[in-house]
Parts: sequence; structure tokens; C-alpha cells
Amino acid sequence: MAGSSFGNIFRITTWGESHGKGIGVVVDGCPAGLPLCEQDIQQYLDRRKPGQSKFTTQRNEADTVEILSGIFEGKTSGTPISLLVHNQDQHSGDYSEIASYYRPGHADYCFDSKYGFRDYRGGGRSSGRETIGRVAGGAIAAKILEQMGITFVTYSKSIGPVTISPERFDASVISQNKLYMPDEKAAEEASAYLEQCMKESNSAGGTIECVVNGLPAGLGDPVFEKLDANLAKAILSIGAVKGFEIGDGFGVSSSTGLTNNDAFISRDGKIAKATNHSGGTLGGISDGSPLVFRAAVKPTPSIASAQQTVNQNGEEIEISIKGRHDPVVVPRAVVVVETMAAITILDALLSNMTARLDKIVDFYKK
Amino acid sequence: MAGSSFGNIFRITTWGESHGKGIGVVVDGCPAGLPLCEQDIQQYLDRRKPGQSKFTTQRNEADTVEILSGIFEGKTSGTPISLLVHNQDQHSGDYSEIASYYRPGHADYCFDSKYGFRDYRGGGRSSGRETIGRVAGGAIAAKILEQMGITFVTYSKSIGPVTISPERFDASVISQNKLYMPDEKAAEEASAYLEQCMKESNSAGGTIECVVNGLPAGLGDPVFEKLDANLAKAILSIGAVKGFEIGDGFGVSSSTGLTNNDAFISRDGKIAKATNHSGGTLGGISDGSPLVFRAAVKPTPSIASAQQTVNQNGEEIEISIKGRHDPVVVPRAVVVVETMAAITILDALLSNMTARLDKIVDFYKK
Amino acid sequence: MAGSSFGNIFRITTWGESHGKGIGVVVDGCPAGLPLCEQDIQQYLDRRKPGQSKFTTQRNEADTVEILSGIFEGKTSGTPISLLVHNQDQHSGDYSEIASYYRPGHADYCFDSKYGFRDYRGGGRSSGRETIGRVAGGAIAAKILEQMGITFVTYSKSIGPVTISPERFDASVISQNKLYMPDEKAAEEASAYLEQCMKESNSAGGTIECVVNGLPAGLGDPVFEKLDANLAKAILSIGAVKGFEIGDGFGVSSSTGLTNNDAFISRDGKIAKATNHSGGTLGGISDGSPLVFRAAVKPTPSIASAQQTVNQNGEEIEISIKGRHDPVVVPRAVVVVETMAAITILDALLSNMTARLDKIVDFYKK
Amino acid sequence: MAGSSFGNIFRITTWGESHGKGIGVVVDGCPAGLPLCEQDIQQYLDRRKPGQSKFTTQRNEADTVEILSGIFEGKTSGTPISLLVHNQDQHSGDYSEIASYYRPGHADYCFDSKYGFRDYRGGGRSSGRETIGRVAGGAIAAKILEQMGITFVTYSKSIGPVTISPERFDASVISQNKLYMPDEKAAEEASAYLEQCMKESNSAGGTIECVVNGLPAGLGDPVFEKLDANLAKAILSIGAVKGFEIGDGFGVSSSTGLTNNDAFISRDGKIAKATNHSGGTLGGISDGSPLVFRAAVKPTPSIASAQQTVNQNGEEIEISIKGRHDPVVVPRAVVVVETMAAITILDALLSNMTARLDKIVDFYKK
Repeated sequence: MAGSSFGNIFRITTWGESHGKGIGVVVDGCPAGLPLCEQDIQQYLDRRKPGQSKFTTQRNEADTVEILSGIFEGKTSGTPISLLVHNQDQHSGDYSEIASYYRPGHADYCFDSKYGFRDYRGGGRSSGRETIGRVAGGAIAAKILEQMGITFVTYSKSIGPVTISPERFDASVISQNKLYMPDEKAAEEASAYLEQCMKESNSAGGTIECVVNGLPAGLGDPVFEKLDANLAKAILSIGAVKGFEIGDGFGVSSSTGLTNNDAFISRDGKIAKATNHSGGTLGGISDGSPLVFRAAVKPTPSIASAQQTVNQNGEEIEISIKGRHDPVVVPRAVVVVETMAAITILDALLSNMTARLDKIVDFYKK
Repeated sequence: MAGSSFGNIFRITTWGESHGKGIGVVVDGCPAGLPLCEQDIQQYLDRRKPGQSKFTTQRNEADTVEILSGIFEGKTSGTPISLLVHNQDQHSGDYSEIASYYRPGHADYCFDSKYGFRDYRGGGRSSGRETIGRVAGGAIAAKILEQMGITFVTYSKSIGPVTISPERFDASVISQNKLYMPDEKAAEEASAYLEQCMKESNSAGGTIECVVNGLPAGLGDPVFEKLDANLAKAILSIGAVKGFEIGDGFGVSSSTGLTNNDAFISRDGKIAKATNHSGGTLGGISDGSPLVFRAAVKPTPSIASAQQTVNQNGEEIEISIKGRHDPVVVPRAVVVVETMAAITILDALLSNMTARLDKIVDFYKK
Repeated sequence: MAGSSFGNIFRITTWGESHGKGIGVVVDGCPAGLPLCEQDIQQYLDRRKPGQSKFTTQRNEADTVEILSGIFEGKTSGTPISLLVHNQDQHSGDYSEIASYYRPGHADYCFDSKYGFRDYRGGGRSSGRETIGRVAGGAIAAKILEQMGITFVTYSKSIGPVTISPERFDASVISQNKLYMPDEKAAEEASAYLEQCMKESNSAGGTIECVVNGLPAGLGDPVFEKLDANLAKAILSIGAVKGFEIGDGFGVSSSTGLTNNDAFISRDGKIAKATNHSGGTLGGISDGSPLVFRAAVKPTPSIASAQQTVNQNGEEIEISIKGRHDPVVVPRAVVVVETMAAITILDALLSNMTARLDKIVDFYKK
Repeated sequence: MAGSSFGNIFRITTWGESHGKGIGVVVDGCPAGLPLCEQDIQQYLDRRKPGQSKFTTQRNEADTVEILSGIFEGKTSGTPISLLVHNQDQHSGDYSEIASYYRPGHADYCFDSKYGFRDYRGGGRSSGRETIGRVAGGAIAAKILEQMGITFVTYSKSIGPVTISPERFDASVISQNKLYMPDEKAAEEASAYLEQCMKESNSAGGTIECVVNGLPAGLGDPVFEKLDANLAKAILSIGAVKGFEIGDGFGVSSSTGLTNNDAFISRDGKIAKATNHSGGTLGGISDGSPLVFRAAVKPTPSIASAQQTVNQNGEEIEISIKGRHDPVVVPRAVVVVETMAAITILDALLSNMTARLDKIVDFYKK
């Protein structure tokens, strides 16, 4: 199945494996007239690139993006934007052993079951490097949204047992610590926890939170194309994510209607909500409040500790995974979550333009 | 935007409002040759119909389904199956007051923002009655899956603060108590809790868990069409759902790689997993273990208690919502979760048939 | 495969067989705020209904449409519009014999090959009655386009060997003769030809031409979603159509660049074209000239004359098809062509709203 | 709108402009296990590359394809195949003048109307070079079809007034003359005609015919996803094409049912057709006969003769187009028609695998 595309009107199609020639994305349906250069995209890629700290893989790649098409005289022309990042620091030799067995927590066995064989070098298409295409494409979506006053604050909310404190929340420090946490003290504690994990040849998970400001009410559709439904798909499509929640999320299950309902109020002559338990959507449509959602990220499955598994002959064996692996993927996944959300929201925003006949007639009258 | 369709190969398109002439669904892409009659579908609708207990709306509707097309001599013919349920017990008068203000926790304000006006009778398209089309369509998907040995166990895992006990888990009692809980004692406690909610003109939320057995390894695609990503969209597209998690879900965030990785083992000559923290997918592809996922359901927003809101002029007012509302929607949503999952899984199963060239060649040779 | 939907943003999903309970369509993605009642749709259905003249099947059906959903207080609400036409005059007995053999020129053999069996009553899903759903859905598209100044003139251009004369072209007579020809003299000649066909138990084909006025320049996309490519699909998806051409069509093959190129001119301060060999599109995008395209319609395959065929056992037999069949389907197909074009054009018009960033920003500023 | 993708299960997404860095395609949904190397694709690109004869543009480009992803150990891995052809011989300077006016017969004016500006270098995205992506992607589809016994014979049927003779039809000479005609004598006459056109600074059109052998009965769907409807879209999406017909095509309009119906016969114990007026589809589904369809190709709009047009200020001017242009595009478009058909047919073939429940159950049992 053709499963490498995301979005309807603004659509990205990603391609590339961990150890192929490169990773790329084709961005189709981008409106014409957006000023765009490589640096607009590179700054997003730099947030996910390896080697930013001791907690990320030491694979040494600049992940420099090249624009191959879709730009004319510095602006998007309305035609597909093809973006390419060459793979550079490939140690395919590291993976020769992996060919013979199934790594726990990885998709190896599933790929073999589905396709009859697999590209075992670095996870192939299931590698985290696949997200380069998402981030590059999503950077364009984010730039468009920014022009419309829609902005993102995304961060590591927890790493292992360490959660940020609402009292110490400081968005300005997110990009200053290596863990993308908006709480310096929590970042320090999380660092200590990660060092302990590394000593024990173990790995950690965490949660990522994304807050979207400036969204108008009315985005998303009532039934299957709910804004939160598409966000859920966007976020669960990221390799390591095992859960998604919006607003109070799983907390709603033990709440009550009286507590969970957000009262509508009048603020500066506009309708607003007194609280935001809903997380910014009601009935799948944006309600004018900030969008707030979270992703649960599992611990990196590649660990150097001994593990039980089977080889391709079905024999039980003990393995220890070598290679250069992040002890936690949460910090680098922050920008992936943000850009996937950007694509989803932009697509809803474009789609919403055809909701009302009077606005359509008005659009074409001018 | 055309947002009332779900699924690619097996696709449902639902239509209808709470207080229109009826509710329906067109099921397109259903394979030919499935024996199908109204009763196959009705038994699923009966699990969501109102009036099953004191905890569900007293709206009195049989929700009897009629097959309008797509069946020839008792079997699906490969052409669209049109299913219709007439609305019967509509008290539109109940809603005249609602036209003038925005109910907290409902999509009223969002609809007005999007479309310029709304069908205020019973929530219109955002009504829970919209799920009739999903359940009717999903019943067909479930019947096909059953023929392939794929079965579902779905139930209320928690209602308000009451959670089922793994020790008392008994699938046979799910359909015997009014709350669809697999634990009679928890069901009793939850009943008591709900009675208290009703006395206080309040409402409750909960969680639903779904376990899918018999799924072969290899379903789902590596990138955006991950099986769990599509499940997340399917489940979040259900009105009251605010969260989705698979396997250990949000629990993975504080776990470690050593704990969270499922060891592969050899069992009866086949590859299996010693544990199922993954919940049945790795890299978005089914891994041969049971699929286990959960949905977080918010408390019914329609409550008789006094609430603050604004009217359409933006004036702050106090309201108290009348009408026939469920104090909890979790029990009736169980079958909606199950049928949405069935559609998602069947679609992945059909899609997977084109993954390997050797199997394609083999298919056409015969 | 789910193949009963057409359109992306404005999408119709048709269902129903010739001899089932009814025929219907779900129109999804219709903008909110369009005044709509049954009569708006009925007037289109009346143009294709049987029994209009001696040249159409004597099957006696009013084909009365019922709106089941999507309208609130006389206007479209933005939610799916479900339309239903009950089948009435079914003589299933007429078709019992057909079950055993393959009618030449019909899809019987193809259905059996694909699905393993077929609904042999009146062609089942391949019946011309399937187009009721298209016409009903397309009537809504046409009403929207009319509000934007986009109108259609569609007619039988030729029937058998009789072609209309450009000199005698009179749009006002199209709906006054039974053959939907804009040339009374040609209509008379065609009538005589058809009477001869009927005497000889034979049938006739023809061509349909559609002219669309008022289309702004800029609709359609440069590559695969060309306006003319989508029109071609729309028109070829009508059962009896074997060819599509736009502008000079097949005539371009023997033309030259000097002749075929349309010079741009300045007219009343606006850019226009001196000629319209292109038929209103250049590079797949509307060029501001009237859209002009044609469909080739094959002779009705159901004829009473003796024909050779095989039965389901593969034995060669001679048959003579009974039943109530049109000697020519061209006149009734005129409105089918028009409404399929309306859907295609409306979809392109809605899609085009997201082409330019400045217009998007402007749209949301207000 | 995201309009650069074609196909559902096997889907190509093309990108690139005439004078950008390159042209490419992402092929998604390609089944795993197909042996594939650059040469498999290059041989198709060589059939459309410039400089093959005096009748094609003298732009000197090898159009060498590079595979960037999707292949592992010489076989397709089931993941997206990214193909890249670098642009080499770009004379952007040739086009500076074109920026100021609208070329007749080109999409210049339409692009400006749609996007507010255009990439005027060599037609930008509307350039014939865009078809490189189609041919490269379609070469893969054709290789898969070949493994299933489905093969293509595609050729120039006419150029200007010169049409091939059925009596002299010789498939073996198609690739031996520069015009891809299966009739050496016609090729000579067409060459003479083209030389005359060139002398007169004029250009010619023609028709392309494609015959597909080995197709099983049952491909395509009954309603909107008819095999011929999708072929029509595929073919009309090629820039210069103005018409599509299948089987007897426009000829059916003056035929009769008795003549046009193909009798079914029994041949070697199998069901076949005595004639093939239908061109291989009935009711939109393949009927087991060869598929035969034609495309009408317009004369190259770029001609050196003086032409009337307007500039971007709306002033009427006279122009004469310089640059390196083909006097006829038919010969180079032959392989474009063939590969677009290959993608369409492969997609129908993959889609058809889910038509019957018994075959699905059977597929998963093994």
C-alpha cells in the first residue's frame, strides 16, 4: 500500500532508509507565494539532528537539506517541493549481525512477516531517520502557520520518572537545555537519570507536550476528520509513540461533567472558555482555546544489555545490541511531534476554507 | 470537506443527524460473497441502543436496521451496501431553548464558528446517534474478520473511579451487566457511583479496553499508515474520546528499555513474544500478539446542574440542560470502539494483500 | 475496492441496483448555507427519467427523490446530504433467463469474472439506474455553480448518422424535443432514424456535447489533477461512453500549431482568446474561455435481434433479449454528462481556493 | 491542492520543473521482491529522451536515472522508491523574453491566473520534462505487469494527415524508425510531412494507440473506478492530449447495437469474444480481450512563426517563439502513454485482489 503520504490538501510523501543514499520528502499542495529557503527548513532539522548531546546517538551527520524543486525566485510556486538530505555517516557493518535475528522492541520480525525479508541496516525504513522527511516538510507547514499567527510550544514534559513542574515552567529554556525541557531543574534531574540508565545499559521513555496558540475556532470536521483524530494519527505514526491524549486526556475518565465541562465566558467582547479541560477541541472542531496534547514515547528498544530473542530460524538466543543509540529519543522527537502537528493543522485550515457557501462566493467575487 | 468516510479499501460513509429522518451508512468495498442479513447487523446495534438500563437515555428507539442495497441472494455482491435506521422518538421541542446558547462541553460554538449556523436539535451531526452508522458498517467488517479467526473482546475497563480487577476478569459477564464490565463486583460499584452522579445531576467518564485476538503478523504499514496510527484516528474520531493508548500506553514513559522490550520466544515451533508490552504492534505493524488498546471517554457534557455559559449574543448566562441524557456514555460506546477497530483492522488486512510480489503473482496464477 | 465515490472535497457516494429497494447517493463536503429542497434535485432527475418518449424504456417510474439528511431550516448544514429514490416498477421476472448467459455488450461476463457471481436483474449495479445517484448529487453541484455564474448547455450533438447543424443551433429547443437536440430539424431526422432502428430491433449511439460558461481562469491543477483529466474520468465513468474529447479533440491530430494555437487578445480590458480550439483549458487549467467537451455514447447493447453468445457453461447459444430497453440512451444521458461535469468543476473550484498564500491569509483575516 | 500523485495502491508522486535542479518521482506502494536496477528504468527513459532524431528538441540531456531508495540487495523492499534525474542542459536565458507575455497554446496565462505568478523558464512544471517522473515510475509498473504476462504495444498511429495502414502493420519496426510507427512507409511519409512543417516554422499533432495483451477479465470497478475511466484520466493528464477513446471510440456514435456488440464465443474451452469493438472493457471491467485505446495529441504549441498574443499588461503584441522545440511530440509521448497505462492497469490489478471474500480467506490461510 502507498503508505508514505500524510495530509490531504497539504501533503507530504517521505522516502528513504537509514542506510540508503539519502532521506527525502516531496511536499505537494503547498500554496504559492511563501518565501522559502533552505535555512527555514534547516533550523527545524537541527533540532532533531544527532550529536547534540551525550544523550543522543554519536552518529555524525549534519543532515543538510537541499531544495530540488518547487521554488521560483525565492518563493514557493505552487508545485511540489522536493527536499533531499544525503546520508553520510553510515556504518552498515554495524548491522551485519542483526540480519540474523529479531531485535526485541523493533519491527524486524514484523517486516519479515509482511514483506518476506527486510533491510536490516539500521532499521531501514523504520529508522528514526525517516522522520527527517516529516520534519523538513512540517517546517514549511509551520512557516505558513506562523504567517497566520499560529505558533507552537513543544517540549519534553517528562523523561523517565522526572516530570516538569508547572511552577517552574519557562518556555525560554526549552532550546537551551539538551533535553528540550521547559524546566531547568527537571532537566538536570532527568540528565542524572539518563546517565544512570546509560551506566546500566538501559534506556528511558517520556512524554512530549505540544501547545498550539492562535488557532481560530472552526477547524476540523464533525465526524471522521476531527482535528484531534487526525492529530492522533499524526502522532501515533511516529515510531516510538504508544499513546496520545488531548486536554485532560486519560484524566477525563475519573472526572465528572461538572468539573470537565469548560464554561463559556465573554472576554473583551469575544467568546472564550474559562478553563481548557477540552484541550482546544469540542466535537473534533477547534474551539478557539490553545490546543494542548501529549504523546507517550517508549524507551529506546536498542540497548546494550543482554536480551532474549530468537533468530530467523526460530532458535532462542541471547543478544546484546551494539551500535550508536540514543538512551532516550524524547528530546529529538519533540520537533517531530511539532512538525507533524503543524502539517495536520495546516491541512485542517486549508480544508476549512470550503465549509461555507457565502465565503466561497465571496472568495471568487474579488 | 468530505469528512464522513472512513477506510480506504473497505470504506464506510455515514450520514444523518439526531433529529433528521434517519441515520445511515454506505459500506463500499465490501468483498463479494459474505452471507449477510439484517440480524447480523442488528445484534451490534442492539449493544448501543438506548434504554438498555437506567444509566442510558430513556429515548425509546428500537434502531432497527434496513438493508437497501448490495445483497443478492443473501450474499454481498461486491457493490455498496446501504443501511438505514429511521429516527423515531424525536422530541425536537426539547431543544428549542438550546438554539440560543452554547452548551459547555458540546460542539455548539464550534459548529457556529465553522458553518455560520447549526442544527441545534439534539446535537445534530455531533449527536451520539451518528455512531449508529459506524456500528452498522463495522458489524459487517467484524463478520468478515470472524471468518478469518479474528475476534474481539471489548469492555468498560473503568467508570469514574471504579476500575475492573484483573483477578476478577470474566469475559462472559460483559454482556450480562448493564455496564459492559468483565467484573461483576466492579460493575456493582460503578452502578452505585453512577446513581450518586445522577442524584447530583452530574455525569461520569471512563475507559474502554479492546483486545483483538487472532491477528496475523504483518498488518499495517511502516510509516503513516501504521496500524496503531489508524486505530488512534478511528478511536479519537468517536465523539467523547480524549485519549488513546496501545499496549502499556502512557505507562511506557516511565518504563525502561529492559522492562518494556518484549523478548521473542519460540513456542510450538512458531515465533511469539514472552510478554506483550507493545500491545500487538511493533513499528506500526502487527506482531502476532493480541492487539490491546484503550480509549479515554469523557463524562457526558449534558448535565442538569447549573452551568455558566454565553448565549449567541455573547452574554453570560446560567443554564441547566434538560432532556434525556446518559449519565455515562462508556457502556454504549464499547461497541462503537469495537466496530471502529474492526473497520480499521479489516482495511489493513485487505491492504496487506499487495505487499509481496510473489503472493500477487501466485494469486493471479490460479 | 471502494469505487462508488467521486470527487475530493465535494464528494458523492452512490449506491443501489436496478432491482433493489432503491437508488441513492450521499453528498459529502457540500458547503453550508445553500438553500436546497427536493424540487431543486427533482428537475434534474426528470430529465433522465424513463417514459419521456417512445424512444425511452417504458419502465414506469417517477423517480421521486427524498432528502433524508443534511438540511436544516431549508439550507445545507455542511453535513452529508443523503438522497433516496425508491425503485418501483421492477419486473425481476423479465431477467430470470438472463441469469444463465452473458449478454453481448453488457458487463455480465465481467461481473462473474470479478466477483464469482452477479446480480443479473436488470444489470444490477451496472444498470443505467445507477446514474440516478449521480444526477441527484450533481444537481446540488450545479445549483452551487449557478450561484457563482457558471452555467451549462448540454445536448445531443449527434444520434446515429444525424448531426446537428451549427447554423440551426438553438439552445432553447433542447428541452422541447424528446431527443435533447438544439436543432429541431436534426431532431426530426434522428427520430426517423430511431424508428427505423426499432423496426429492425436494433439500437443507435451518438455524441453529447457540453458547454460550460462563466468559468474563471485558474481551475484545475498542472499535473495529474488537470481539469480535463478529471472531466475525462467523470465522463468515461458513465456506462455507455467510449470516448472523450475537449475543444478540437481528435481533430487536433491533423491540425498544425499555427491553426490550433488560440491567440490571446485584449477584450474590454481583459485577456481573452480569439478562438477556442483548446476548449477552455491549457495545461489542464481553465483558461477563461467556455469549456467545450464531447462524449461518444455507444448503441444500447440490449436489442431484440438474434445474437450469438455463450451461456455460463461456455456453450455457444443464440439469444434474443426481451424487456423494456431504450433504442438509444443518448437523450437521457445528456443530464448525466452535465451533472458529472458539474461535480468535477465544483470540486476544482473548491480545491483552487488553497492555491495562493496571499488569498489564504486574506480569507482568515476577516 | 496536492495534485502530483497518481494511483491508489501503486502510487507515483512526481516533482520537478524544466529548469530546476532535476526531475524525480517517488513510487510508493510497490510490492516487495521485484528485482530492479537503474537499467530497467533507463530503457524506458531512453524512449522519451531528447535528441533521438531531427524531429525532437536538440536539448542535449542523457536523462540518466538514479535510484535513491527502496531497493535492498537488488530487490524492491516494499518501501518508497525515489528516482532522480538531474537537469543538465538548461538554457534559462532562452526564456527571459517569455516572462513578459503569454504564449498561445501554453499554460502561461493559466498559471498566472491560478498562482499569481509563474516559473516561466521552459514551461516550469508544465514542461514535457515533467513526464520523466511518470515514465520512470511507470517503467516499474510495466516490469511487474510483464512478470504477470501483461505486455504493451504502443505506437504513433498517425502524424498530421499520415495514418498507418493496418495491412503494413509491423510491431517490430516501431522502435526502429524515429517516429515510433509500426509502418515504415507511413513513417517515411510522416517524416516528409514533418520536414515541411519545420520549413514552415509550424508543428504537427497525431494519435497514439496502445494495445495491452494478457489482461485477465475482471479488472476495474463497476462505477467510478472503471478501468477505462481511470485510463482516460491517466491519458488526459498528459500535457498535449486532447482526446481519449477506447475500442471503436467515437466510431460507436454512428454504429448500431447489432454491429457494435461483440458476440461471446467459446475458444479452446474458454470464453472469448468474436470481435473487439469494446476495446477490452465492458461496464468498465476488463473482458479478457486486448485493451485497445487511443490518444489525440495536439501540435506542439511552441512555433517560430509569428503569432498574436498579449503581454502581462494586457497589450496585444506579435511574437515569434525561439528555443529548441520538437516539431511534433507524438513519438516521444508514445512511452508516456504506455507507462501511464501501465500504472493504471497495475493499480487495478492490485485493487482487484480484494474483490472476493473466498479468495481473501484463501490468501490468508496459506
